Amino acid sequence: MSIITLTTDFGLKDHFVGVLKGKLISEYPEVQIIDISHHVDLFNISEASYIINASYNSFPKGTVHFIGIDNERTTENKHIAIQWNDHFFVCADNGILSILTQKIVPQKMVEINIHDRLTDGSTDLDVFVKVACHLAKGGSLNVIGKEISAIKIVNELQAVVASDSSNIKGYVVYVDHFGNCVTNISKKMFAEIGNNRNFEIKFGTKTIKKIHSNYSDFKVSEKYTLRDYEGEKLALFNEAGFLEIAIYKSNPKTVGSAKSLLGLKYRDVVNIDFRI
Amino acid sequence: MSIITLTTDFGLKDHFVGVLKGKLISEYPEVQIIDISHHVDLFNISEASYIINASYNSFPKGTVHFIGIDNERTTENKHIAIQWNDHFFVCADNGILSILTQKIVPQKMVEINIHDRLTDGSTDLDVFVKVACHLAKGGSLNVIGKEISAIKIVNELQAVVASDSSNIKGYVVYVDHFGNCVTNISKKMFAEIGNNRNFEIKFGTKTIKKIHSNYSDFKVSEKYTLRDYEGEKLALFNEAGFLEIAIYKSNPKTVGSAKSLLGLKYRDVVNIDFRI
Amino acid sequence: MSIITLTTDFGLKDHFVGVLKGKLISEYPEVQIIDISHHVDLFNISEASYIINASYNSFPKGTVHFIGIDNERTTENKHIAIQWNDHFFVCADNGILSILTQKIVPQKMVEINIHDRLTDGSTDLDVFVKVACHLAKGGSLNVIGKEISAIKIVNELQAVVASDSSNIKGYVVYVDHFGNCVTNISKKMFAEIGNNRNFEIKFGTKTIKKIHSNYSDFKVSEKYTLRDYEGEKLALFNEAGFLEIAIYKSNPKTVGSAKSLLGLKYRDVVNIDFRI
Repeated sequence: MSIITLTTDFGLKDHFVGVLKGKLISEYPEVQIIDISHHVDLFNISEASYIINASYNSFPKGTVHFIGIDNERTTENKHIAIQWNDHFFVCADNGILSILTQKIVPQKMVEINIHDRLTDGSTDLDVFVKVACHLAKGGSLNVIGKEISAIKIVNELQAVVASDSSNIKGYVVYVDHFGNCVTNISKKMFAEIGNNRNFEIKFGTKTIKKIHSNYSDFKVSEKYTLRDYEGEKLALFNEAGFLEIAIYKSNPKTVGSAKSLLGLKYRDVVNIDFRI
Repeated sequence: MSIITLTTDFGLKDHFVGVLKGKLISEYPEVQIIDISHHVDLFNISEASYIINASYNSFPKGTVHFIGIDNERTTENKHIAIQWNDHFFVCADNGILSILTQKIVPQKMVEINIHDRLTDGSTDLDVFVKVACHLAKGGSLNVIGKEISAIKIVNELQAVVASDSSNIKGYVVYVDHFGNCVTNISKKMFAEIGNNRNFEIKFGTKTIKKIHSNYSDFKVSEKYTLRDYEGEKLALFNEAGFLEIAIYKSNPKTVGSAKSLLGLKYRDVVNIDFRI
Repeated sequence: MSIITLTTDFGLKDHFVGVLKGKLISEYPEVQIIDISHHVDLFNISEASYIINASYNSFPKGTVHFIGIDNERTTENKHIAIQWNDHFFVCADNGILSILTQKIVPQKMVEINIHDRLTDGSTDLDVFVKVACHLAKGGSLNVIGKEISAIKIVNELQAVVASDSSNIKGYVVYVDHFGNCVTNISKKMFAEIGNNRNFEIKFGTKTIKKIHSNYSDFKVSEKYTLRDYEGEKLALFNEAGFLEIAIYKSNPKTVGSAKSLLGLKYRDVVNIDFRI
């Protein structure tokens, strides 16, 4: 079984995703195609970077991850293919793999160079289709590109540790479907820097002093049931390993969410303070 | 062929559904995954209950229905798996199967008890993935849970018959993509209680005296074509077998819908009166 | 491998698409189902016609295209199945294939006549499922319908050439996910009528004098990088072969789009003037 996952900003109304799938199965009829997201905010490298990092590892090794965001080839944006932890990534070199880059050293990186081998009228999408199917079939990176030693990194995505380790300063990098706000502060960074010290999580005028082990990690008693905690704010490390500011049983359309109730939004600062 | 269907409130923007699919095919590469909906209103048990009841029976027997809504395991919400009409349902015991419960007696019900058999860091999602794949492979319910005799029922979802059978009082339980309003009054209940008597369907200040056999069931003549009826209100029993208040050729974004034109909304009362 | 593609206005929240897929795989377990779009504007024949034309040819020959839009069978809307360029289309005869009709002569057209062969309670959807699976299995059109010689055409979808060939008058027929506005002026028509003459593209109070070869086809220098052109308007022939008015790196939610920045909307006139 060979799998190609799709992460794009194409949306689901237009025919773009259908056309992409038609091209993929025309090129490689046995491939299994899985959608990660087609609703990445348009040209938003940061969102895409978060989604890719949070999802790729749930797939079997050998999976090819097709990233169709800001992928028009220009002199500034080369087309690249990367092997990483035995997964393959096909994308434009626009910083979209920045979160992954912080964690793992790539096994191999190439700049795709098959553009002049395709027929006239071929688009950037056709190049990606060709490369993704080649890799899904078990083909080698050398056949479709020349090795490179570095790719673009977007540094603004990284949380910052104070020089005296008294503080971690992060940002909201992603607001999810539930209106919960995900920061770029990883569980690993928190454990290493915090080293079991006391802490306060601060954003805007709000403070949170506990990290939940799960969303419903509230103190239940004869007096208070879980239902009484609905709408309460909380912090936890989410399934992707990042600090998330959430509302218990949030619903952006009805009771509200971390975004609406706490006023948090994309790019806002979230601090963890250890000087207490 | 083994099929797992997915009904969740995860939305399609985030990576959640992609991650779920990655975990499922990692666990069981040959499984076929079909999306029912990922846009159930967040934590909305009533909507989910309607969607599950309306869809499960279009799939072959042996299909496993994975329900990812309000599925964090708490002391109040156990994880359960049910065999019903030779279909399998994996969900939290939060009332989400209430509409089904009214219609069919389950073949077998278990409380899932494999949580301590999974590796550290496993989530509620991982438990559901394990159970769904086990069942899709033809595994037995006994292996993953201990038998139980009852599950939670949300009674508010049921239509009520007057003690003298003069009236059925129902509610709008679902507003669909076309803005049509589906009630919890079933065709079966209407036939049994109505027994071919005359009737009037009443909601707000509106009355409907006919039940259409299909959306375009209008009287066409040389004078009036179907086009002249666009925008007209009507009532019919929909494909799921429930009474629906609709607008012919509705479009919530342009001409309007039952919701916008008739002022009907989720939870509003719809009466069928037989005293005429 | 047999493929059925789906283009509908069912939306993705309700169970409708899931039910359709369940029926298809119940009827034909080996079929591969690919979504083109389920977010066609409700009952919008023009949008659907554009999407179908722009997508079908990315699939292998023999693919069956299932079109679930305005498909209730009435005396005015027969059910039809068409073979075209070795692809199959199953839909209602409501003008939805008008753009295709302008380009290619069908190989065979039938009016579906299997309705009385289905079990009681079968819906229009069930008829389409039966026909689509029959064709995907390699079955003949003759078995499911009787041959017809013409289908409905919606003429308003066609661009108009001035009698002295001085001008092409088109319309915006589709606004895509990026807010870019697609007209019904084809690359072929432009080449034949224009015949390499100078031209101006005019809409509202705006004029564009160049047709881009791709979105980033701007003059880059030491002074101006591509980033400086973000937000600029441009015209190009898109992947579907139609003239598109676009904004470089548009985002309807943030920087704006052709729709929001240029005031263009569905049905607006776009002229190409050769008298310059």
